[in-house]
Amino acid sequence: MPIDWDQRYARRVQRIKGSAIRELLKLTEMPGAISLAGGLPAAEIFPLEQILAATQRILAQQGQQALQYGATEGYTPLRDLLAQRMTVEGVKVTRENILITSGSQQGLDLLGKLLVNPGEPWLVESPTYMGALQAFNPYGPEYVAVRSDHEGIVISELEVALQRHPGGMYVLPSFQNPSGVTFTLERRQQLIELAGRYNVPVIEDDPYSELRFEGEPLQIYQGNVILLNTFSKVLTPGLRVAWIVAPAEVIRKLTLIKQGADLHTATLNQMIAYELTREGFLEEHVPVIRALYRERRDAMLAALEEYFPDTIIWTRPQGGLFLWVTLPEGLDAAQLLGDALEYRIAFVPGAAFHANGGGTNTMRLSFSNVNAEQIEEGMRRLGKLLHNRMLHS
Amino acid sequence: MPIDWDQRYARRVQRIKGSAIRELLKLTEMPGAISLAGGLPAAEIFPLEQILAATQRILAQQGQQALQYGATEGYTPLRDLLAQRMTVEGVKVTRENILITSGSQQGLDLLGKLLVNPGEPWLVESPTYMGALQAFNPYGPEYVAVRSDHEGIVISELEVALQRHPGGMYVLPSFQNPSGVTFTLERRQQLIELAGRYNVPVIEDDPYSELRFEGEPLQIYQGNVILLNTFSKVLTPGLRVAWIVAPAEVIRKLTLIKQGADLHTATLNQMIAYELTREGFLEEHVPVIRALYRERRDAMLAALEEYFPDTIIWTRPQGGLFLWVTLPEGLDAAQLLGDALEYRIAFVPGAAFHANGGGTNTMRLSFSNVNAEQIEEGMRRLGKLLHNRMLHS
Repeated sequence: MPIDWDQRYARRVQRIKGSAIRELLKLTEMPGAISLAGGLPAAEIFPLEQILAATQRILAQQGQQALQYGATEGYTPLRDLLAQRMTVEGVKVTRENILITSGSQQGLDLLGKLLVNPGEPWLVESPTYMGALQAFNPYGPEYVAVRSDHEGIVISELEVALQRHPGGMYVLPSFQNPSGVTFTLERRQQLIELAGRYNVPVIEDDPYSELRFEGEPLQIYQGNVILLNTFSKVLTPGLRVAWIVAPAEVIRKLTLIKQGADLHTATLNQMIAYELTREGFLEEHVPVIRALYRERRDAMLAALEEYFPDTIIWTRPQGGLFLWVTLPEGLDAAQLLGDALEYRIAFVPGAAFHANGGGTNTMRLSFSNVNAEQIEEGMRRLGKLLHNRMLHS
Repeated sequence: MPIDWDQRYARRVQRIKGSAIRELLKLTEMPGAISLAGGLPAAEIFPLEQILAATQRILAQQGQQALQYGATEGYTPLRDLLAQRMTVEGVKVTRENILITSGSQQGLDLLGKLLVNPGEPWLVESPTYMGALQAFNPYGPEYVAVRSDHEGIVISELEVALQRHPGGMYVLPSFQNPSGVTFTLERRQQLIELAGRYNVPVIEDDPYSELRFEGEPLQIYQGNVILLNTFSKVLTPGLRVAWIVAPAEVIRKLTLIKQGADLHTATLNQMIAYELTREGFLEEHVPVIRALYRERRDAMLAALEEYFPDTIIWTRPQGGLFLWVTLPEGLDAAQLLGDALEYRIAFVPGAAFHANGGGTNTMRLSFSNVNAEQIEEGMRRLGKLLHNRMLHS
């Protein structure tokens, strides 16, 4: 008798279904299509030569170590270097506070496993990073979603939410995915103060803060905060090297959990990230990324002004990869995507970034992996479509 | 108020504690120590030149793709190639049956998330691979442990265990970690027949079967079985590239779960594994590994004969990395390890490989990562210790 797999699946994963949107977006691989959908870094500036040179050195000098099983905590020199860089920035951190992860997505999974109990409240922003919801979902949280405005999470609503005593709070305060919004310093301080008062752990996801185009850098990392950081946006995502910064006792527990999850992150990949960081390459490379993305953000903002109907609003991010568009109420972005794909232009409808529904009239546009001409042409097509839609609705 | 982290941890991970044994084994990094503890491949035969050449080619020709985000399912040419290799071996498999994972440890974690419900029976061997228990533990199974003898899992006991309707069964039938035991063809057929009759999914973990020193290769993979395989033992473990073979609908579900767990496995690492496999390098390299490990197994068996007391028994594996020693009842291997470390010799006490306790008088010896001289000297020290112990007990 063949196995009825659907019936065999554990309760925690029974509600996990494939996404129709994701299937649709596979269509954007056709020639001539312009995709503003994926959150992909610009591959044309990946430092291939530097990575190759580092790999040659590593395999020549430490090849056996690079390809043998390694410690679950991560490659010690990399942990030391990351700790030292944070200490330079004013936060006292040692290697005991750092766990290397296989991308920040793994950090989210490990933290979900560590902190989320089935059926218990868990606080996220609205909208929030879809990948975080995918990581937490199998652990069964009951999401409490707190609205953000252009200054970040809305503090009065945050306090009401904290009164439900969530097991933790997940925020992405710098150039948020999907909205592009950055918390002001005041909101950051209020969040930390409130989380401390209600004794709720804060997970700060920080993949983008180095990609600031303008304005002053801000910092909220403190000892009570669990910080997620990554090489994906400042070097390359395909290496899958990221890290968690947390109190030493939390790192020890996460290390045991990671041991069961994938033993350790590929050592060669960690060594490549280490070599390039140690040599000061990031200080030279990150400004190149910033300049390119700023140019693309500017192109997108200009094209939005030119081609989009007046009743549509969008965010003006000071950094990162994304901006967020709000259509008039009643206009469904998922339906719009269906039409847009016929015009060979793609984006991500905003509903998937909402833990508890809503947001059907929102969309995320990514400007990092398309050039200024593609942005102009994409916005022209999308603007035309929107004008038509709004004329006939 | 600082957070009381212990109190914050989710119920599923509260029982996960650091292992005193693991801390002890860190002592084996001291000079002159001989470690038969870790399950490490022999690093001196890692194909560093071939890996470097492949990396150079990949970065020159497909660098952007190798370092960009990739598909969760894995690198398509690698999935096709693995499917084709299995089809050649007589099992019909396509890429839809294959998910690339970040090591087989991740495969175990994904399958635990997919199939294990808290408090429900879950079948394993006794002893079984410790890493599988670490992967499944957070999902809260109630283990039903079935004894294996020198021919593999004991079928009469398996049938009794199946009557408890476990959510699934985890077995490692070829050169088992830790015991070195290989299921006979008859036991394999009986297991498949019984699992089918009781409609219980079988997870077959198969990292070692290519490392057969003698005897005929056996196969149990069938459509109802979920197979775990890996490049860790035939290429290098540090790449962290492995794969799951399963029915297409199971792969689709596992892909959604992996998306939340780490997005995808590092593409560069997958491409390296692909290049070396495609070129036929494994056909040339695996015999080199086999010959080396056979020599080391023989050295260990000879030294065991020479130095160990007569009342001690051990397995004679036909392949793999490990053998398994059973001491007289009442002799505690964990206590023995304390003394052994003073003689600078290490092994893994067997208790940790038992899901429900027991096995305190057993130990795992690994022969893959020590040369014949180290094996001879290590067995001499351990034998002396055992003679002393048994004299005074």
